[in-house]
Amino acid sequence: MIPAKSYAAQSATTPLGPWSFERREPGEHDVVIDILYCGVCHSDIHQARDEWGGSIYPMVPGHEIVGRITRVGSHVKDFKVGDLAGIGCFVDSCRVCESCKEGLEQYCETFLSGTYNGYEQDRKTPTYGGYSTRIVVDEKYTLHISPKLPLEGVAPLLCAGITTWSPLREWKVGKGHKLGVLGLGGLGHMAVKLGVALGAEVTMLSSSASKEQDAKKLGAHKFALTKDAKALAQYAGYFDFIIDTVSAQHDFSTFLNLLKRDGTLILVGAPPKPIDFPAFGIIPRRRRIAGSMIGGIRETQEMLDFCAEHNIVSDVEVINIKDINAAYERMLKGDVRYRFVIDIASLK
Amino acid sequence: MIPAKSYAAQSATTPLGPWSFERREPGEHDVVIDILYCGVCHSDIHQARDEWGGSIYPMVPGHEIVGRITRVGSHVKDFKVGDLAGIGCFVDSCRVCESCKEGLEQYCETFLSGTYNGYEQDRKTPTYGGYSTRIVVDEKYTLHISPKLPLEGVAPLLCAGITTWSPLREWKVGKGHKLGVLGLGGLGHMAVKLGVALGAEVTMLSSSASKEQDAKKLGAHKFALTKDAKALAQYAGYFDFIIDTVSAQHDFSTFLNLLKRDGTLILVGAPPKPIDFPAFGIIPRRRRIAGSMIGGIRETQEMLDFCAEHNIVSDVEVINIKDINAAYERMLKGDVRYRFVIDIASLK
Repeated sequence: MIPAKSYAAQSATTPLGPWSFERREPGEHDVVIDILYCGVCHSDIHQARDEWGGSIYPMVPGHEIVGRITRVGSHVKDFKVGDLAGIGCFVDSCRVCESCKEGLEQYCETFLSGTYNGYEQDRKTPTYGGYSTRIVVDEKYTLHISPKLPLEGVAPLLCAGITTWSPLREWKVGKGHKLGVLGLGGLGHMAVKLGVALGAEVTMLSSSASKEQDAKKLGAHKFALTKDAKALAQYAGYFDFIIDTVSAQHDFSTFLNLLKRDGTLILVGAPPKPIDFPAFGIIPRRRRIAGSMIGGIRETQEMLDFCAEHNIVSDVEVINIKDINAAYERMLKGDVRYRFVIDIASLK
Repeated sequence: MIPAKSYAAQSATTPLGPWSFERREPGEHDVVIDILYCGVCHSDIHQARDEWGGSIYPMVPGHEIVGRITRVGSHVKDFKVGDLAGIGCFVDSCRVCESCKEGLEQYCETFLSGTYNGYEQDRKTPTYGGYSTRIVVDEKYTLHISPKLPLEGVAPLLCAGITTWSPLREWKVGKGHKLGVLGLGGLGHMAVKLGVALGAEVTMLSSSASKEQDAKKLGAHKFALTKDAKALAQYAGYFDFIIDTVSAQHDFSTFLNLLKRDGTLILVGAPPKPIDFPAFGIIPRRRRIAGSMIGGIRETQEMLDFCAEHNIVSDVEVINIKDINAAYERMLKGDVRYRFVIDIASLK
């Protein structure tokens, strides 16, 4: 077995603290990764605190993982010792359903093995995430990471990056499109960078006037303060797409009204209360609302390659693992620009 | 001026009764139509009773109009005296916005002239609908009607037909698709007939067990009773598309759950209260919800031609204009299979 150190939650109400455990011996198709950086996603907090229900403890959060391969199984073809590697939100899936066969494993119709707070395909071995020194994963669920970019900025691409990239590609957003990005946080700042790189005209829609400068620095062409009804009115019927990254409750009618005929609001943030809007918010202009969830392995690799080529990383604040609980508190206040990333050297 | 007899509502609280008024003298591009049949749409009741607000009185409802042309303006090219003709939900639009130029006049971004309870493009001359003996309309907003089909069954195609046809075409529903039709009323029965004719596998989703026989007669391949949780469970993740024709309040999560990955629920009925569903009802399978409203002139003609070719009409109960108020009461109880159509001879 492979010993690993980690920071884990032992229950929904205890702060994260040191915990040692063992990873499986690598199988023929597995790689062993020495983790270098792990991003901190808002869903880590939800799950560590059991806010979505069904949490499994001890829980080692973290699904924005970048590291270096130290061992490979005998049948591993695509990776070798010394390669950089990334792991995102899942480490396995059924591999045979229609979604898996299409390379959309995130929508596996049978059973998705989340990177943490989940189970392996045997449905009984718990999975542990990236707030740890090592991880063992099948090479099919492992991503290639370019050495060109700063690794700490690459880690959040594995969740925040792919979550916004996947819908941008599914809806073929690019040149000639007007894209609104609702909410400037971990997801929103990636949506701006990727939307701009794909050629869209990007408008940041934020409730915080103080973020206008940041939005422009990230590449946004325009900024609209969502609390300012007059400012928003200028964008009525304006956007082809809005990527809605806000996971707090908000008013959907207002933003649906900013869509053109046939425009789509794409939901990637998940507010706790129901989405609601009047039927006449979508019928008279044939508007659409869609959900989208992370992305498949193939498109995650595509996104990583695109980012390497276009020099795109997440804006991060690197922290020591000892500061993870304080980081959670700051995230709850929105006090991070735009992603905390744990330097896993601090765990060793 | 052209004298016309009608049945009109004089206020939100008075029943419809006889009213005489004058239509404009036909302009160079206008046709004068002697109305033969007019369908009775649920929105006639909403508007006659001012349930959506802003109603204009006196109001002559009716936007499912079939008749025969008795005069044409000097520049009319496409119609001649004696031709059958149809008028749907609008009689004019701005003609220059993007939607009008694309033939999607129903989404006119400037000003749509509804067939009744609206204004002409001058924004001050009220429009009066088809519960009347004659109508004067620009030929561009007039449809050709085949003499092959029974005219009373054709009238509802002008609203119920096109409202379901337009999304079926926009989303390219056809062979290989599994289509659910939610609600078996005026819209639902047309969605079944058109969906079947376009080659989809059609399942009627109805809360009324007594409609199973009817659904099958209309051509539905399958029937699921929406009150029966077990029956519905068999359709979890089953449909590529659901056309939701229900204008009463209902539970959207239940029906979203019947969609496949990437499936779309298309809203053509407009419940009075907000649409609501949890974010996790659409995120994990990338599901979509879309609105759709009637259809443009070009696609209405396409639908009428398709129906003539495939021998499709609405199932109707022909009534005398004197019985219109009683018909409204029966519609409110769902007691019509599936559309009342006024024989306008009873007005003459």
